[in-house]
Amino acid sequence: MYHKNEAALTPPMGWNSYDYYNTSVTEAEVIANAEYMASNLREYGWEYIVIDIQWSDPNAGTKDEQYINFSHFTIDEFSRQTPAINRFPSAKDGAGFKPLSDFIHSLGLKFGIHIMRGIPRIAAHLHTKIKGSTHTADEIANPYSISKWNPDMYGVDCSKEGAQEYYNSIFELYASWGVDFVKVDDICNTNMYPDNPYSAEKEIEMIHHAIALCGRPMVLSLSPGPALIEKAWHLETYANMWRITDDFWDSYPLLLDMFKRCEIWQGHSKPGCWPDCDMLPIGYIGKGFHHERMTNFTKDEQMTMMTLWCLFRSPLMLGCELTKLDDFTLSLLTNKDVIGLTKHSKRAHQIARNEKSAVWMCKDTLNDDFYCAMFNFTNEPLSVSIGFNELGISGPLAAKNLWTGEVYPDISWAFSTVIAPHGTALFSLSF
Amino acid sequence: MYHKNEAALTPPMGWNSYDYYNTSVTEAEVIANAEYMASNLREYGWEYIVIDIQWSDPNAGTKDEQYINFSHFTIDEFSRQTPAINRFPSAKDGAGFKPLSDFIHSLGLKFGIHIMRGIPRIAAHLHTKIKGSTHTADEIANPYSISKWNPDMYGVDCSKEGAQEYYNSIFELYASWGVDFVKVDDICNTNMYPDNPYSAEKEIEMIHHAIALCGRPMVLSLSPGPALIEKAWHLETYANMWRITDDFWDSYPLLLDMFKRCEIWQGHSKPGCWPDCDMLPIGYIGKGFHHERMTNFTKDEQMTMMTLWCLFRSPLMLGCELTKLDDFTLSLLTNKDVIGLTKHSKRAHQIARNEKSAVWMCKDTLNDDFYCAMFNFTNEPLSVSIGFNELGISGPLAAKNLWTGEVYPDISWAFSTVIAPHGTALFSLSF
Amino acid sequence: MYHKNEAALTPPMGWNSYDYYNTSVTEAEVIANAEYMASNLREYGWEYIVIDIQWSDPNAGTKDEQYINFSHFTIDEFSRQTPAINRFPSAKDGAGFKPLSDFIHSLGLKFGIHIMRGIPRIAAHLHTKIKGSTHTADEIANPYSISKWNPDMYGVDCSKEGAQEYYNSIFELYASWGVDFVKVDDICNTNMYPDNPYSAEKEIEMIHHAIALCGRPMVLSLSPGPALIEKAWHLETYANMWRITDDFWDSYPLLLDMFKRCEIWQGHSKPGCWPDCDMLPIGYIGKGFHHERMTNFTKDEQMTMMTLWCLFRSPLMLGCELTKLDDFTLSLLTNKDVIGLTKHSKRAHQIARNEKSAVWMCKDTLNDDFYCAMFNFTNEPLSVSIGFNELGISGPLAAKNLWTGEVYPDISWAFSTVIAPHGTALFSLSF
Amino acid sequence: MYHKNEAALTPPMGWNSYDYYNTSVTEAEVIANAEYMASNLREYGWEYIVIDIQWSDPNAGTKDEQYINFSHFTIDEFSRQTPAINRFPSAKDGAGFKPLSDFIHSLGLKFGIHIMRGIPRIAAHLHTKIKGSTHTADEIANPYSISKWNPDMYGVDCSKEGAQEYYNSIFELYASWGVDFVKVDDICNTNMYPDNPYSAEKEIEMIHHAIALCGRPMVLSLSPGPALIEKAWHLETYANMWRITDDFWDSYPLLLDMFKRCEIWQGHSKPGCWPDCDMLPIGYIGKGFHHERMTNFTKDEQMTMMTLWCLFRSPLMLGCELTKLDDFTLSLLTNKDVIGLTKHSKRAHQIARNEKSAVWMCKDTLNDDFYCAMFNFTNEPLSVSIGFNELGISGPLAAKNLWTGEVYPDISWAFSTVIAPHGTALFSLSF
Repeated sequence: MYHKNEAALTPPMGWNSYDYYNTSVTEAEVIANAEYMASNLREYGWEYIVIDIQWSDPNAGTKDEQYINFSHFTIDEFSRQTPAINRFPSAKDGAGFKPLSDFIHSLGLKFGIHIMRGIPRIAAHLHTKIKGSTHTADEIANPYSISKWNPDMYGVDCSKEGAQEYYNSIFELYASWGVDFVKVDDICNTNMYPDNPYSAEKEIEMIHHAIALCGRPMVLSLSPGPALIEKAWHLETYANMWRITDDFWDSYPLLLDMFKRCEIWQGHSKPGCWPDCDMLPIGYIGKGFHHERMTNFTKDEQMTMMTLWCLFRSPLMLGCELTKLDDFTLSLLTNKDVIGLTKHSKRAHQIARNEKSAVWMCKDTLNDDFYCAMFNFTNEPLSVSIGFNELGISGPLAAKNLWTGEVYPDISWAFSTVIAPHGTALFSLSF
Repeated sequence: MYHKNEAALTPPMGWNSYDYYNTSVTEAEVIANAEYMASNLREYGWEYIVIDIQWSDPNAGTKDEQYINFSHFTIDEFSRQTPAINRFPSAKDGAGFKPLSDFIHSLGLKFGIHIMRGIPRIAAHLHTKIKGSTHTADEIANPYSISKWNPDMYGVDCSKEGAQEYYNSIFELYASWGVDFVKVDDICNTNMYPDNPYSAEKEIEMIHHAIALCGRPMVLSLSPGPALIEKAWHLETYANMWRITDDFWDSYPLLLDMFKRCEIWQGHSKPGCWPDCDMLPIGYIGKGFHHERMTNFTKDEQMTMMTLWCLFRSPLMLGCELTKLDDFTLSLLTNKDVIGLTKHSKRAHQIARNEKSAVWMCKDTLNDDFYCAMFNFTNEPLSVSIGFNELGISGPLAAKNLWTGEVYPDISWAFSTVIAPHGTALFSLSF
Repeated sequence: MYHKNEAALTPPMGWNSYDYYNTSVTEAEVIANAEYMASNLREYGWEYIVIDIQWSDPNAGTKDEQYINFSHFTIDEFSRQTPAINRFPSAKDGAGFKPLSDFIHSLGLKFGIHIMRGIPRIAAHLHTKIKGSTHTADEIANPYSISKWNPDMYGVDCSKEGAQEYYNSIFELYASWGVDFVKVDDICNTNMYPDNPYSAEKEIEMIHHAIALCGRPMVLSLSPGPALIEKAWHLETYANMWRITDDFWDSYPLLLDMFKRCEIWQGHSKPGCWPDCDMLPIGYIGKGFHHERMTNFTKDEQMTMMTLWCLFRSPLMLGCELTKLDDFTLSLLTNKDVIGLTKHSKRAHQIARNEKSAVWMCKDTLNDDFYCAMFNFTNEPLSVSIGFNELGISGPLAAKNLWTGEVYPDISWAFSTVIAPHGTALFSLSF
Repeated sequence: MYHKNEAALTPPMGWNSYDYYNTSVTEAEVIANAEYMASNLREYGWEYIVIDIQWSDPNAGTKDEQYINFSHFTIDEFSRQTPAINRFPSAKDGAGFKPLSDFIHSLGLKFGIHIMRGIPRIAAHLHTKIKGSTHTADEIANPYSISKWNPDMYGVDCSKEGAQEYYNSIFELYASWGVDFVKVDDICNTNMYPDNPYSAEKEIEMIHHAIALCGRPMVLSLSPGPALIEKAWHLETYANMWRITDDFWDSYPLLLDMFKRCEIWQGHSKPGCWPDCDMLPIGYIGKGFHHERMTNFTKDEQMTMMTLWCLFRSPLMLGCELTKLDDFTLSLLTNKDVIGLTKHSKRAHQIARNEKSAVWMCKDTLNDDFYCAMFNFTNEPLSVSIGFNELGISGPLAAKNLWTGEVYPDISWAFSTVIAPHGTALFSLSF
């Protein structure tokens, strides 16, 4: 029997086209990033290549508006979006993403795509067919269930005959393409739909069932956040990862806010279930938004981010153009000690948090080690001292600073360190 | 120069197809009601014949749902709805409502139609043309501006070129048909659009300008309510009547509630500006809702309703099938004294209201008379006594009960009467 | 029979201690302001001298906090606040405000005080007596009905025996002191009490009845705003003036906002009923707030304010220290043409308003003249032209600019003028 | 060092006076219940005797209102509530609850009391002293921080000097009395204070610190609920148990609702941290509410409740009069298998929930056993079958129905059972 948790036993790691390309990425650009990953990052655990929103729109990126109202994107006879041929030439002749997916698999990587929940609006208006059903798009589309920010789709009404069949049909197609990861958008923060509080939840369930039926394991990733903590059980039952934040960008207030979100969601990460802090906006980003830049985060802020994401075991998705990676950014992504936390830590929990600092701790699953991270939220260097009794452990122990490599062979009862502004100190503790 | 107030110097009176026929009225049925009105009611001031929602949908009324999702209703090459030929045969060959309108005018009556704000969704998806503009429907439609209860239209974005031209083009068409009255729906209760608080207001302004340009006076009626009292100035500036309530039906709690609404809106009625208490659900109603019935209102409740509507000077729109009018209902509609208040009273104001009763008063414009209405909200007969000093008048005076015809030739300082449960007493006062 | 409207047949005009003295005004300071008014302003209609909040607190103004938590202010044996003797020496020996009131009356002026709705909290806790009742303070006080911003009082529960007697007893006391005007605070914006939506309304009614019984006419002024337009009928029935805004200070955004509020409340001003735009923060203000200053308003903004307040017929209450009045401010207060609008205009209504400008108009009650005011909301001089047809009048006419005195003897069909940034042009129109 | 978790390593079990006595319990009644518990229930783990709200009010229970407005309850010179002597005679001569506590301890039981957060209102108004501080009650009380349902207290402002000292002083007193358990009320559902969202949280922290300082371990129990799941980390850091529901009574809709609340809070129970489903309203309850009755719950509903509470590891507090316990109720409280789950189970989690049924599962900490509970939400008997793969286990195994005692020695791959309406089946599973 298929169990959805097996598709993501550790937090997925990869690359996503959005932060650099916005809606407009092309096949050649995807391939370039995939080749870089295969050559430079794969050995550190990075493996997913994900094409984000609007891949079926031939005009995406050509107008001022991010999403083109009433754009004539490509759909097949069964109301299903297909890749825009002008952007993804290998998709010609009805091949879909199969050729591109095959190539990415040949590099030892995995392939992912983005979709919006629902069915194309135009299909509903034209009464287009649904594969495997005698019903048509107008019969399952809910004209009142729309996204607040994208004009393409109508929500699917789970109470209608043909609704599950529609979702089955699109995942059957994705399975035939070799898709390994699906980021479903406009579905995660169910607070967005005050008039239909349960409809998005029901679409999550239909998608879960469609994946179970399609014959190919796929990671189910839900966006955008913030997901509701009251819905944690539902998310853990039906999805593999879900955004716990609205879109995250390279702004320190957003990073600071993530500490509140991780406080709320601690204890909910486990194999197959990964609360998601969103993409890592480091390296070169923003080109598709007419604002290409090296990340605005300082180096210390980037280490803070990597420490929190890894210790919390968030999925790690790179938002940057990989072919432009600089040495510092690359060093973050290839620090085996830090990245390793996503693979073999457990029970991450917050020890303390106030306006100035926070302390987190977790356990290694491979041995008896612990990890302890301290964070400085202030704009000045901060001396931090924390007694082992506050951590629930007792010394003596040996500590290693995982970012600097410094080793402290024999500590009796407390750490003391000075942390840079907005920075972090991350220690492994061996007894 | 056109002045919108001149289109409705007194509150419009007429018949509307909705309460009896729901979405499905046909030409023959409209004609039958119009002929009845011309023969029996016209001389009392009743003159408008209004075709309500979904006249362009050939399938209206054939499915379980009130409004058919993604129905292929008829539009012309310029994105404008046209009458469904199967329901309105005289509209064939592009004639639109012109033949029916001509017939109604030939009876000495006036002709009105209902529209939803916005442009057909299908026109936006098909990039249909706009008359008088190089822009197309997709360029002026706002994909996020939808009705909460009807699936047909997208709101028109006033900031876009072609938006005003679209509204001009539809009112040009209506003027060519001879339309005298337009009920615009999904536009009045601007609280319905928390994400776009001003868009419906801007559509009201565009419609006002389109009417001013179209060359034919038309009453502009806005629905549904409740309109916001904070927006009274805007409504008085751009419209002729606006609903101060959600849909009104034959239920006593709704009637009771109207006293609160009239309290709020008193002082805002004046030539060309009529806060609207909605249609009169009396006589036979409900057939199109699969619940045909004689109104659930008691006779006393009906007299209460007529008294309040007339004294407050609400527009009077009959919701019932006129060809089935019974004697009692007919007597309500032909009581010249009561109906006359809508024509020649002014300054209606509430004197008192509590849980048991209310008192209203107004002035006659033809002479020095006053009118005073008392209402009993309880389920028992109620003795009411009201001193002239509370009304701001002084006796002696002669009073006439306008519902019973009783005359009290010489009253010195107070009324005393017993009012039936849910009933009313309405007096004219002559000095 | 007492009719509350007779206490304020035109909008009250006077001085209030708050804007300059905050909570700390003394008897000597009140007298100095009263003497100035009698000598310099009385002939222009200014007549009320009002002592604002905390006059019973001997320590008011001595601590950092505006209202001292749990301060031991002075109350009599019947739970009624009395003046702090250290601040109002003439109140000694139980005289209350009678001696001060007598003096102010001797100047030909009228005397007003501020109160908070409710009964002192300490009286409830000590079970103090209520005059004219066998009940005690704890039996009528509602421990859950508190102000959000002042710690002194509990609301009075109208359903309890002794509640009306309490309010009767305090107004009996005020009548014995010779009070002409009572500003009741924490009672007007009934949105402040989501848990008890009707309690403040019931206190308004109890206060109204207490005034009717006390044997002395008193203006009933309600604060703070914004009052709810849905409650207009209630306010017009029970009060003489009510704040349509939160506290107004010398900040242009607040002045601009008042145009929205006057738009909403137009049509509700009539003898005895005055929607209130709050005090005029001109001249020297702010001393009691540790920020004494000449008003931040420019001269043009002050003329804009005076024009709007007078044309709208708001009550006019000076917030400044009168003994420091400069010539310009004095000229505003003694412009008989402008001030006169509050005495003999009617039917003020907004003709137009957009982001750049507004136009208002009203009628003179003494003759056939009209008044027209134009306002420039921009930061640049603005050319304004308005056709007589937009005003609903027809020329030719003679116009006089009431601020400059310029006369235009013969205008045919339109005004054209240039208005200073944030400024106004106010014309009288004679036919 | 004191660690708060050690005060409640397993979920507290005991008796609370509220459900039967409301505000009016007396010393004799407490003793009678304690003696019953010592004789009949102690051996099953029941040990706390808790006196609920209003023990300092001599008049509690003598008026119509549940909480007497402005009642003169007893406080000492340091603003601290003391027991009402007329109700607790042993508290005379300043002994407080020490004699009663000593007696309860002599029975082998533990002693608990209820308090409201804050400081008595009367103390603030009288400027009463705070022990260990030069400040007085008026200086630390927040006049705007009041309970929505009890009139006695003001919240304590943590930013003021003397605030922590006040809380230290009351817990010093409770420690001197021998208190083992404190139920702090008006503090848990921080949504109740929209104007002061963090003040109650700060009071929780002050109380935590006061307990740590007082020298005696005390269970800290917070009420009322629902606690906010977003605040779980704060609650787990500072308290021992917190209500996840508003007051729970003997009504099936409330019981059904608890399944939603347990779904939300699963995973948060651990030694020292117990989400609390509230008291068990079984046996005789309601006397103090003028509605004495045997619980309205059916026997099946009571077993459902006991199963859920025990498996979820909620604290168990009896609300009934123990001296009137009937055999059936007693059998519920002495079922060692079921009660034992609160002592030696872990990782309770929901397997499934829909409108008809739910399934929960947990692990035994003493051996390799599991427990599985199934619930029938319908009004009819329900056949339930659940495969081991859905539970994440594999057979064969032996099962025992813990309510009926039936044993199934060899099951291969699924349970099948029929559950009574509103009833439960609870199995232990041995491999």
